[in-house]
Amino acid sequence: MTRNELTAHIKQKRSYLCVGLDSELRKLPRSMNGFDDPVFEFNRRIIDATMDFCVAYKINTAFYEANGLKGWESMMRTLEYIPETHFTIADAKRGDIGNTSSQYARAFFETMDFDAITVAPYMGEDSVRPFLEYPDKWTIVLGLTSNPGAADFEMLQCGNDFLFRRVIEKVSGWGTSNNLMFVVGATQQGYFQMVRELIPDHFCLVPGVGQQGGSLEDISRQMLNDDVGLLVNASRAIIFASTEDDFENAAHKAAATYKQQMSALLP
Amino acid sequence: MTRNELTAHIKQKRSYLCVGLDSELRKLPRSMNGFDDPVFEFNRRIIDATMDFCVAYKINTAFYEANGLKGWESMMRTLEYIPETHFTIADAKRGDIGNTSSQYARAFFETMDFDAITVAPYMGEDSVRPFLEYPDKWTIVLGLTSNPGAADFEMLQCGNDFLFRRVIEKVSGWGTSNNLMFVVGATQQGYFQMVRELIPDHFCLVPGVGQQGGSLEDISRQMLNDDVGLLVNASRAIIFASTEDDFENAAHKAAATYKQQMSALLP
Repeated sequence: MTRNELTAHIKQKRSYLCVGLDSELRKLPRSMNGFDDPVFEFNRRIIDATMDFCVAYKINTAFYEANGLKGWESMMRTLEYIPETHFTIADAKRGDIGNTSSQYARAFFETMDFDAITVAPYMGEDSVRPFLEYPDKWTIVLGLTSNPGAADFEMLQCGNDFLFRRVIEKVSGWGTSNNLMFVVGATQQGYFQMVRELIPDHFCLVPGVGQQGGSLEDISRQMLNDDVGLLVNASRAIIFASTEDDFENAAHKAAATYKQQMSALLP
Repeated sequence: MTRNELTAHIKQKRSYLCVGLDSELRKLPRSMNGFDDPVFEFNRRIIDATMDFCVAYKINTAFYEANGLKGWESMMRTLEYIPETHFTIADAKRGDIGNTSSQYARAFFETMDFDAITVAPYMGEDSVRPFLEYPDKWTIVLGLTSNPGAADFEMLQCGNDFLFRRVIEKVSGWGTSNNLMFVVGATQQGYFQMVRELIPDHFCLVPGVGQQGGSLEDISRQMLNDDVGLLVNASRAIIFASTEDDFENAAHKAAATYKQQMSALLP
């Protein structure tokens, strides 16, 4: 999906919500037990219940790999089920030496047909480049993450700068705002402006609202740009809004609420 | 596998060779084409041909994920085929926020039964801890990698230190030399001593000999410790020593040569 298409979807829907399908098998409502592929069945219903309110779905590979072969199958089926109107993100945090990253790029952009993949920057340019070579695909590099561990290295002082700033600055030179995004955690409100100054035009993928405590309003007021420039992700707060049999309704309502809030925050 | 067991295997065999099963489908010898699972069939033969000379096998997940569901299946079958005497490494370079890293740990230590997994450090402590919680399992954290991109961030000056030194120093406090190793690229000969001073007792996993040009002798002379403390990996130089039908023989010879060299370098 191109940037123009993504932005058009967002503006038309007045939502920049991404729904994270962190569909942990052990947390699924009991009514899913009877199905042959409970994770896919759950995802199918969540997608049906939320697609009117979001523009993207994010599949975190960890929750699928934990179920082995069957999990990988649930992931592929889920990806195929997501409508073409929605931007699809493999939240895989991959990255390896060049010839190996090429294989990851093949896995997520050819064997599967995700629009985007999250990538860890530690190993540098040749670990990121292979993902950027795919036209109309997106590489979403970790900048400043939402978790407590962000303080360990991402916020190390490197010269006069935090490491995460050096990362965003350098990586932004490897791609363009048409094929590169950055992860910025919603819990990092003290640094939104700093990031936006560094990359005024790029989209950022923002996890960490909901369960992790980040504020949709803070991130939106400080980081919206002319093309919106944000995909704000909520996972557990939507898909597990209820863990009982009314989960579809609860997910529908939670997604609708996010959408309403986003709509009000857009100009 | 415990450290004592690993060290015993190494000392008995006088080899610290790890064979990397980067078994890219498109590079397999033509004779593999007829098999239902060519990657597994290839790996099975490579394992048979090399197991007397190595103590570990490293499966790089990228090469399997590139083949989708079928690839994941080849990976699981290969893992099951590796004899219990050999240390098994999922070269997966995973890492995410705590509750997600727990899922990756489940995937590779429970759903599959690898002895070790490689982990990217960028996201900090809560992204690494869940892997360390498994008894007799190993977490292998990226320190200084073998690729050109290592210069981009790993070698950034942070205070008076390189980032990779800060990473190794900090991460080494999260585990012990009984459950934590570090990746140190064989191409980084200028820094072996620095790493060894920082972590005298830890094992290091060393990729980058062979195709990438690192020297087995350099790394061994500078980094062997009382418990050997090294697993040196060769992938393409062994498994693709020949890409014709004599590949088993060629892999056998290549692995035997590494073993001989290692044997001579051990005290």
